[in-house]
Amino acid sequence: MSATKSALLKRIFLAAVAAVDPLQILKDHLPEPPRGRTIVIGAGKAAAAMAKAVEDDWPGRIDDGLVVTRYEHGLPCRRIEVVEAAHPVPDAKGEAAAQRILEKVQNLTADDLVLCLISGGGSAIMTIPAPGLTLADKQTVNKALLRSGANIGEMNCVRKHLSAIKGGRLAAAAYPARVVTLLISDVPGDDPSVIASGPTVADPTTRADALAVLRKYNIDAPKAVLARLADPASETPKPGDERLGRSETRMLGTPQKALEAAAAAAQAAGYTPLILGDLEGEARDVALVHAGIARQIARHGQPAVAPVALISGGETTVTVRGKGRGGRNAEFLLALAVALDGQPGIHAAAGDTDGIDGTEDNAGAVLAPDSIARAVDKGLSAKAMLADNDGYGFFSALGDLIVTGPTRTNINDIRVILIDPTQSTRAGS
Amino acid sequence: MSATKSALLKRIFLAAVAAVDPLQILKDHLPEPPRGRTIVIGAGKAAAAMAKAVEDDWPGRIDDGLVVTRYEHGLPCRRIEVVEAAHPVPDAKGEAAAQRILEKVQNLTADDLVLCLISGGGSAIMTIPAPGLTLADKQTVNKALLRSGANIGEMNCVRKHLSAIKGGRLAAAAYPARVVTLLISDVPGDDPSVIASGPTVADPTTRADALAVLRKYNIDAPKAVLARLADPASETPKPGDERLGRSETRMLGTPQKALEAAAAAAQAAGYTPLILGDLEGEARDVALVHAGIARQIARHGQPAVAPVALISGGETTVTVRGKGRGGRNAEFLLALAVALDGQPGIHAAAGDTDGIDGTEDNAGAVLAPDSIARAVDKGLSAKAMLADNDGYGFFSALGDLIVTGPTRTNINDIRVILIDPTQSTRAGS
Repeated sequence: MSATKSALLKRIFLAAVAAVDPLQILKDHLPEPPRGRTIVIGAGKAAAAMAKAVEDDWPGRIDDGLVVTRYEHGLPCRRIEVVEAAHPVPDAKGEAAAQRILEKVQNLTADDLVLCLISGGGSAIMTIPAPGLTLADKQTVNKALLRSGANIGEMNCVRKHLSAIKGGRLAAAAYPARVVTLLISDVPGDDPSVIASGPTVADPTTRADALAVLRKYNIDAPKAVLARLADPASETPKPGDERLGRSETRMLGTPQKALEAAAAAAQAAGYTPLILGDLEGEARDVALVHAGIARQIARHGQPAVAPVALISGGETTVTVRGKGRGGRNAEFLLALAVALDGQPGIHAAAGDTDGIDGTEDNAGAVLAPDSIARAVDKGLSAKAMLADNDGYGFFSALGDLIVTGPTRTNINDIRVILIDPTQSTRAGS
Repeated sequence: MSATKSALLKRIFLAAVAAVDPLQILKDHLPEPPRGRTIVIGAGKAAAAMAKAVEDDWPGRIDDGLVVTRYEHGLPCRRIEVVEAAHPVPDAKGEAAAQRILEKVQNLTADDLVLCLISGGGSAIMTIPAPGLTLADKQTVNKALLRSGANIGEMNCVRKHLSAIKGGRLAAAAYPARVVTLLISDVPGDDPSVIASGPTVADPTTRADALAVLRKYNIDAPKAVLARLADPASETPKPGDERLGRSETRMLGTPQKALEAAAAAAQAAGYTPLILGDLEGEARDVALVHAGIARQIARHGQPAVAPVALISGGETTVTVRGKGRGGRNAEFLLALAVALDGQPGIHAAAGDTDGIDGTEDNAGAVLAPDSIARAVDKGLSAKAMLADNDGYGFFSALGDLIVTGPTRTNINDIRVILIDPTQSTRAGS
């Protein structure tokens, strides 16, 4: 692979990450220090970086602080305690931290400020079952919901009504203190009530809605769950609730900001950026569609004339059939390699903005027209390795991984495909 | 669904089909009549319509003619015999017709003209095993190739060397007559040597290549197949072969022409067309990607500002898991419906340009923001029907099928998504 293209692709990926890095963007969103105390709390993959950014730039005093993040996403802070816990399956460390966070916001006054730092993953990392429920009860319902075909809105409705901290309860607990929630979104639409299940945001859904979801999908919920939903105390704070009247949200980073930063970096290098948006679907099929669009640009100059940078975000899925290694970005990129089969003039990168593609040590990888041929020289078959879900193995063997370590932010994935004009490029049919 | 939008979507689909309809486009591509005899032959889903178009517009005499098409794709002709045969699995009728076609081009002179009408599906419909082989021998190898992971180029290489008519042999048999092949392409790249396995086009691959493919994929070929490939007589005519020196091809219709006709029809209705090209992949995942791009247009005005028409072609696949009915276009559209979940301002159509989506009686269907809700009123769940692969049942119940009957042309599918501005549309992030 040409060193120049590889460097450009990495630069574009890192520009997208930088656009949502709390250490670079948080300070512009801080409120005025309060007359009273300042308490910093938070949860999510970006929690430690957000806490560090607050410490670096907060003009006032920090009286107390505790944030919880994913294992290996911590960062040393001076005033704010940083706890690491499990994701995506909650563990006791996350529950204990969540309990302590709830305690820290008790007994505040109207002169106090709670800075709440929320990012993707926070829902699993900061979990407290509602009174009367065990973590096992919640997990039973959660698994049944995941199997049921319920949509994400329906699942969140139930989850919020079985939690002691989600769906606005954290902000209600902090009342009458002012609550300012700084958010990094990893969800399409950037709805603050959805990110980490909105611990500081009013919940428009009711416990009757939650019961209706369980009935609709014939979910055989534990008795304790049904008892909880029958209890008026299970109701979440609603829009207009006085206890949330002093709570506001500020959106720091969104997938769209990262996509636009990638587009700006590509444009600066002479490419016309085409942002396709946040995409879902099986990684290898999403790759086939990207390959088709890239070919259309190369052959017909549609929907834009090369040089073009195709840019997309979102989160694909991988149905594991083989025994290889690699996350969804390596899988996407290997499927793209097979589909493009060395087509000249097309380079690509894909990576997870949190710095961890799946469970490997890479954020993503880069692809060039000669990748397949270089693999053949090493005795590797791209097609066979794709069948084995071994995207990591493929790009690792080529020395084409993108390795960043945990970035301590997360707006899902970034994919960039650079289509350059080649001698065989022609316009029209 | 608004009657206007539904009518517009159907108009755009039919404009794409019309752009590749032999009855409308063939006459501009006819050569001068010869001094000697004119023989018309051909194979493919469009063969009958192409034959009819020749009869309508040929200024000279037609001395003899025979074309073979798929069952139910026939059309009455006066001078040219039209035979129907099986597709995609060949049958004896197709083999007998192919044999007679080969006979008709024997013993011609340099003053004679063979008009050869080739379209997608011709490879299965017009099959003759090479001497010494049975149809069963060919099928054994074909099935093994399909399972092996060999790419389409590798499969065609083997197929051409096991055929008595493909890979340029038909043109060689017609020598020294002039051969003009009129083509309707259903393959990405529109390579005449690939469409219907190029019966009149020189084959750059060799029998050594074919043997190498069998070895590469460890294919246990029947003895007769190996014997055939060991025989120099199995070699196909190569570029530069004198017998093909009087053979030329003319491309009448391509997927790109159909996409551009759809784009022009959408543009005439006020939409900015974005042609994504010929796409492959599992239908429901391809739908998720289209949904993501449509949402990006609606929310962020990227990669273009609404009103936009997203247009794509190509051929998706469906992994059947349920027991419902429907082809890949109904599956795509139902998955799109579930993904968009009633999002305002987005309408769509998808259809197979041959008029037959899978094995049903519809070409495709149309989708509106109210489709899901109208289905709920009828007691139908889009999600459950998608899980059952019942796209036909869904759109049939809504009265939203596109029914054209066989169109007697084929350039694969056309998908159109219209994104209109809505009150909630906003630019930027």
